[in-house]
Amino acid sequence: MSSNNQVYGGIEAGGTKFVCAVGTGPDDIRSSITFPTTYPEETLEKAVSFFRQATKGLTLVAIGIASFGPVDPNPLSPTYGYITSTPKPGWANTNFAGYIRESLGVPVGFDTDTNVAALGEHRWGAAVGLETFIYLTVGTGIGGGGLVNGKLIHGMLHPEMGHLAIPHDKEEDPFEGWCKFHKDCLEGLASGPAIESRWGVRGENLPADHPAWQLEAKYLAFGLVNYIYTLSPQRIIMGGGVMQQSHLFPLIRQRVQHLLNGYIQADDVLQRIDQYIVPPKLGTRAGVLGAIALAQDTVGD
Amino acid sequence: MSSNNQVYGGIEAGGTKFVCAVGTGPDDIRSSITFPTTYPEETLEKAVSFFRQATKGLTLVAIGIASFGPVDPNPLSPTYGYITSTPKPGWANTNFAGYIRESLGVPVGFDTDTNVAALGEHRWGAAVGLETFIYLTVGTGIGGGGLVNGKLIHGMLHPEMGHLAIPHDKEEDPFEGWCKFHKDCLEGLASGPAIESRWGVRGENLPADHPAWQLEAKYLAFGLVNYIYTLSPQRIIMGGGVMQQSHLFPLIRQRVQHLLNGYIQADDVLQRIDQYIVPPKLGTRAGVLGAIALAQDTVGD
Repeated sequence: MSSNNQVYGGIEAGGTKFVCAVGTGPDDIRSSITFPTTYPEETLEKAVSFFRQATKGLTLVAIGIASFGPVDPNPLSPTYGYITSTPKPGWANTNFAGYIRESLGVPVGFDTDTNVAALGEHRWGAAVGLETFIYLTVGTGIGGGGLVNGKLIHGMLHPEMGHLAIPHDKEEDPFEGWCKFHKDCLEGLASGPAIESRWGVRGENLPADHPAWQLEAKYLAFGLVNYIYTLSPQRIIMGGGVMQQSHLFPLIRQRVQHLLNGYIQADDVLQRIDQYIVPPKLGTRAGVLGAIALAQDTVGD
Repeated sequence: MSSNNQVYGGIEAGGTKFVCAVGTGPDDIRSSITFPTTYPEETLEKAVSFFRQATKGLTLVAIGIASFGPVDPNPLSPTYGYITSTPKPGWANTNFAGYIRESLGVPVGFDTDTNVAALGEHRWGAAVGLETFIYLTVGTGIGGGGLVNGKLIHGMLHPEMGHLAIPHDKEEDPFEGWCKFHKDCLEGLASGPAIESRWGVRGENLPADHPAWQLEAKYLAFGLVNYIYTLSPQRIIMGGGVMQQSHLFPLIRQRVQHLLNGYIQADDVLQRIDQYIVPPKLGTRAGVLGAIALAQDTVGD
């Protein structure tokens, strides 16, 4: 991998905050920083300054970026490395990877936040050795990424797993959904802001036996079975703020089994579902550690 | 590839009929046969007899099987090559690939019908050169397969794309769905038998302006957008009996754009959707030709 003074940089760029770190893996983070996401110039300059400071006396080999989106992750495209059509003020059409590469003069890897978090879990976390799995984050939004056949999912663009069309029984749940594009898609019904709008309080302030959680588990389970039917993942890792409510895991597992109804004859879902639907092993560090893994992959280390 | 007397065998094993062929590709089919799927012993013996007859004076290099399912496509599993838990009488736990291999003494490739049809379209049809795409068949059931990152989708088991949980407005459509496992999943609402149960006539006897087709397009579009959000295919190929109603294609394309609502900023869906959602180029031969492609892949040809 790398000699002792060779390090990699990771940037986890979220819509509300940036996390940057320098190191070579989970047990070797030399320094890290967290700061709010404001405007591109200011935020990216802050990241660049951090890496300049933090790598004094070290060799920065490459940087990996886990970005909020939508992004252009296609290296053959003229807008590769851009954040594209985001509604976040100032950030649409930002040449994120290009700015970092030019400022720091090192190779830069670039992908969606969830694809990169998946990569982190694949290198050091709950998906070591798997070829095909999903990493889903449930928080301010719902996003998913993953590996299929050992590689990150790209295709036409990149996954947007939060926006699935799922059943919505309006008698049981008259909340109309808050997704700006699709109203009652999965994200519109089950993300953090959906919970807050529906019940009038933030999820973290709802007790574990509140009916909110049964409904939440139901919607998330609709999403999960659809991913299972579509690409047959070997594991589903669920992170993000909402999944900090760890009592959700058993509810979701139960709902998934109920919905599959024995159709998928695989021990992973029939017998070992508690090892099939799991939290990230890297916890909230999956994104920034994944970015370091991406940096390593970018230069073939 | 192969010298002139080297040929490959393909078996497309459907729930109602078997199609077997010998040749090297779409322009070189030496012989083929179609017969009804009855019981395993009888049906598999008929296939074996055909290959023995049809390859006299030729060298049969390998056989590929495109099987109805669920199947076990994992070469490391003790039940690799089996049809597993099918409700079709007599066929559960049938060692399909093993029987063919032992009877004919050649290497055998084995996968789901839709994965294999996808492979056929990738080799010679509408998906040449693509890394990530889906092949969906809408007929007696709904099934899907495809390639992601250049390889067939496997993972935990194999895709079961027909069984997605999708929105079902019971006021608009009180039909409760016919899927034995999930009632109103995509297959339960939009397969051929669903159309027939809902309207009391077979789809092929409903005129093109019948409201059945708007509803059908709506359900299929829910499925398609969910595949797009999950794995971002570069193309979606739709075959099967129901899709013989070619007036469905423009209805589906329109619905997909309507549902995506501009969220996926890719010209493939915004500008070129008529080249994005397409019929198979190999038509009804995708399965058996895919099986020949699989036979070739099995021996590295």
